[in-house]
Amino acid sequence: MSSYNAPIRDMKFLFHDLGLLKAVQDLPGCEDASADMVDAILEESGKLAGNILAPLNTVGDAQGAVLENGMVRTAEGFSEAYRTFIDGGWNSLPFDPANGGQGLPWLVGMAAEEMWFSANTAWALCPLLTWGAVDLLEAHASPDQKARYLTKITSGEWTGTMNLTEPQAGSDVGALRCQATPEGDHYRIRGQKIFISWGEHDMTDNIVHLVLARTPDAPPGTKGISLFIVPKFIVNDDGTLGARNDLRVVSLEHKLGIKASPTCVMSYGDSEGAIGYLVGTENRGLNCMFTMMNNARINVGLSGLAIAERAYQQATAFARERVQGSAPDGSPQTIICYPDVRRMLLTMKASTEAMRAVTLDTVACLDRSRRASDPADRARAQTRLELMTPVVKAWCTDLGVEVASLGVQVHGGMGYMEETGAVQHLRDARIAPIYEGTNGIQAIDLLTRKVLRDGGDAVRAYIGEIDTLLALLDAEPDPAFKAICSQLARALQALGTATDWLLEQGRDGADRALAGATPYLRLFGTVAGGVMMARSALAAQAALEGGAGDTDFLKGKMVTARFYAENILPQAEALVTPICDGHSAVLALPEDQF
Amino acid sequence: MSSYNAPIRDMKFLFHDLGLLKAVQDLPGCEDASADMVDAILEESGKLAGNILAPLNTVGDAQGAVLENGMVRTAEGFSEAYRTFIDGGWNSLPFDPANGGQGLPWLVGMAAEEMWFSANTAWALCPLLTWGAVDLLEAHASPDQKARYLTKITSGEWTGTMNLTEPQAGSDVGALRCQATPEGDHYRIRGQKIFISWGEHDMTDNIVHLVLARTPDAPPGTKGISLFIVPKFIVNDDGTLGARNDLRVVSLEHKLGIKASPTCVMSYGDSEGAIGYLVGTENRGLNCMFTMMNNARINVGLSGLAIAERAYQQATAFARERVQGSAPDGSPQTIICYPDVRRMLLTMKASTEAMRAVTLDTVACLDRSRRASDPADRARAQTRLELMTPVVKAWCTDLGVEVASLGVQVHGGMGYMEETGAVQHLRDARIAPIYEGTNGIQAIDLLTRKVLRDGGDAVRAYIGEIDTLLALLDAEPDPAFKAICSQLARALQALGTATDWLLEQGRDGADRALAGATPYLRLFGTVAGGVMMARSALAAQAALEGGAGDTDFLKGKMVTARFYAENILPQAEALVTPICDGHSAVLALPEDQF
Repeated sequence: MSSYNAPIRDMKFLFHDLGLLKAVQDLPGCEDASADMVDAILEESGKLAGNILAPLNTVGDAQGAVLENGMVRTAEGFSEAYRTFIDGGWNSLPFDPANGGQGLPWLVGMAAEEMWFSANTAWALCPLLTWGAVDLLEAHASPDQKARYLTKITSGEWTGTMNLTEPQAGSDVGALRCQATPEGDHYRIRGQKIFISWGEHDMTDNIVHLVLARTPDAPPGTKGISLFIVPKFIVNDDGTLGARNDLRVVSLEHKLGIKASPTCVMSYGDSEGAIGYLVGTENRGLNCMFTMMNNARINVGLSGLAIAERAYQQATAFARERVQGSAPDGSPQTIICYPDVRRMLLTMKASTEAMRAVTLDTVACLDRSRRASDPADRARAQTRLELMTPVVKAWCTDLGVEVASLGVQVHGGMGYMEETGAVQHLRDARIAPIYEGTNGIQAIDLLTRKVLRDGGDAVRAYIGEIDTLLALLDAEPDPAFKAICSQLARALQALGTATDWLLEQGRDGADRALAGATPYLRLFGTVAGGVMMARSALAAQAALEGGAGDTDFLKGKMVTARFYAENILPQAEALVTPICDGHSAVLALPEDQF
Repeated sequence: MSSYNAPIRDMKFLFHDLGLLKAVQDLPGCEDASADMVDAILEESGKLAGNILAPLNTVGDAQGAVLENGMVRTAEGFSEAYRTFIDGGWNSLPFDPANGGQGLPWLVGMAAEEMWFSANTAWALCPLLTWGAVDLLEAHASPDQKARYLTKITSGEWTGTMNLTEPQAGSDVGALRCQATPEGDHYRIRGQKIFISWGEHDMTDNIVHLVLARTPDAPPGTKGISLFIVPKFIVNDDGTLGARNDLRVVSLEHKLGIKASPTCVMSYGDSEGAIGYLVGTENRGLNCMFTMMNNARINVGLSGLAIAERAYQQATAFARERVQGSAPDGSPQTIICYPDVRRMLLTMKASTEAMRAVTLDTVACLDRSRRASDPADRARAQTRLELMTPVVKAWCTDLGVEVASLGVQVHGGMGYMEETGAVQHLRDARIAPIYEGTNGIQAIDLLTRKVLRDGGDAVRAYIGEIDTLLALLDAEPDPAFKAICSQLARALQALGTATDWLLEQGRDGADRALAGATPYLRLFGTVAGGVMMARSALAAQAALEGGAGDTDFLKGKMVTARFYAENILPQAEALVTPICDGHSAVLALPEDQF
């Protein structure tokens, strides 16, 4: 079993040296998020992750979640860890104080959350879904619904779930059939949902399911979907728990990974119909759910980064210890000395740090988009947030799999053995490119809704900022900055070329543009990582010049940024041809020749 | 459970239209390998794979191999399938008729073998190791050893294993400690070996272990290693089985995949010492073993390609059936209609076909290197074989993992569920970049032994051939060929630049060159795939012009080749900077900053 050390040093660098904390501290309600307070939260969260959650990661993988007599038994220690988690107030970090939340910036909350995901992905999915539910209900629930549910799920005393998928309705949410029949002040819900993470468990007294269903006479497709609160136990007016609602877990899936996270087939309304309460108005359910999904997409991106961090830590620890071969003087060599192993580890490290910087920078936009006093500032942040959300989700989760796979490779033969634990990270990571909208769906979202819909305004604003950054890099005399600047300039050129082509070709949703959606997202993420690593190098340089301590870390950050620029960023250029020319073959092959 | 249809059409294309069979038919002893005969072998092998081996793939994964009372029980049906296999004469295809082999080209044998790997990787590893053992003993065993063992393992009546690794000696084989003490006409072997695939099983009466060990006073390192035949049961002079040898399986590993393949910890000589017979001369064991390893490396590359093919078939079948969304006219759409899904499937298809072409082309070199009458022809083929062996091993196995992972992705949420079977391919594929020399070791082998040692002669000859190919492509008027030609020219330029830099910088085994070994191998494999796909496009065009039937297939091959050129080949250029400039950051980061 590998230990986990929260990457607090890197987070502090991003918060303080790179300026992410400053970007949110001036927001109304965030004034209390002082550097000291934030540092203390990170430290404490790191302890929770390292001491409580991480030791349960292999336990959860081995035991899984078990369905017995309609009850789901979570793995040993999971319930106790959850109790520690909510007793520590961790669940309520970023939420509205009106419902018992702590009102901290999402930036702080998600930095803490990264650690829980690194420590124990399967476990951390439960709070992830609850956070999405809180976020949704804060935005869309009625005052009565807030009073009844929100305090309890803000504290984590109850958990939340997200019920979209049905067997015939996956990426095509509009195809769902689950029914909601009005009955007095509530509805009766009937239907089956699949892939419901933490749909049933033994960690809390109640579970608040958020369920998409159709009312009678609702229009077909996505415009006829409504959202319902369907609690496991009915909540009485005095807040006590009443009758068991007519819903049940039918079965658990047997998955490649995240085995301790119960993935449930849920049945609603086998008997009299499950009682559900409409959130918002009828037929607007998908809009409500998108609040939750966008939140969850960033969180899932975070989980990709988090598993990469854990895999990197484990691979590094192995490479420091494993002796193979000897130095020219005959002394035994640990494999971390070999250039090829160093390349693997640096690929893991640079990717992980780039993902963290991109993700937290995006989360800072989330905070600004919600709290900035100036509406124009809010709007700008919202635009950037929307642009980056699919990138964070898809790019970080694809890289999460790649980094976890490299982690296996660093271990050699031992890596393939389950006892080593390296493959658990790969198995756990592999779900993230799939759920919360497959990465293909993310790429199409980026292309059609975030780049094409506004005629390229959002992406051009982003590109303009990189131009400014290039000028700063170019002004630095150090040859490392020359290298970073020259690679970033090439990558930016690639992004510009691809973007222009897509804006030209994709206006009518043409297949030739859609055929390039996935390489375009990869190009975008690769450049975004390069931008944040270049900014990090500048911030490290400034800190060094300012006489900050910890020069080894700061110099290491500059080396890592250069590594990213020279070893990862060049992939950007290679994606232009697939985007701009690759479509003809993609679309040409007749179906029977696949 | 997914079915498997052997890719006989593509193999016939490579054999007949691309000319691979012609390249070996003129070799002494290969005269009988007529087109009709080879086609019949492929068809029959496809039936064996599809009907017998493929249905056992999920069974094997679920049941695994089980150790009970010192015996390994293989999964249900495995023994019977093995019996069918050897009764059909499949094990002896490429071997010396003097020992009961059929003397067919390796080209035919390995094409057949691809199918067994696709159908059931875990099972097929057993013949893979036996083939390596036959190959080794044909080259290095004494006449008496051949008489005693070779007929039986050529037929497959007994199987063979390969015992190199010890806990402290993985990539560093020279660190092994297993001891061999001379005693009359044999030796006593004592020591522990790990990761021994099919080290113990219930499919045959005897197992012939090939074990590396040190004799007393042997020099340290790789120059003091000898090779021994250590049979599970001693073979009497009359060929009957005698006493049980002093060796045993201690435990089986619990692995990510290939669960039906028993990965054994083997103990030799717990009591009186296991009886072993020296192969060749003392201290030359590693040379003998390299015969087996090089054979096995190509076979492992083949397994990467084979799993990719299986994953592709399964993903395609799913994409043809899965309905999500609807066409503009409102009719339900299968996901194979969507450009993003088509891109995933074409990436899988083009990668797989490129791997098959590169691998079989290399195997044709293997045949020529052994059988060509002209020594200069043999030498040329040997040089090319040596150059391509690490590329086939590493590039095909890395792509095997990537393609299997894409196969999971095509399935969406269903892909992550074990019952779908898509993740088994990913789990099974993940070992191949590790065993038979990690892909990092392959990359170092390519760089130092195959490119640098001869001052670049082998690689320059290869590059020269691509120049000739470019001229042919350039002469074709069809715009598809213009596209292929222009992309291949860019990729070739990249290979040339990187090769020149490495030849310049790497002469003294400098770390700055070694830091680029892995991207260089990837660049090499990517170009090699592009070369074979371009040659395939030309061959398809020629066949079309010659009025060959099956125009849909031939046109599809041209589309696939263009897809490769425009969507995969551009990666080559992106690897030049990592190779030529990336080293400075790779080598600069202090160890404590990882």
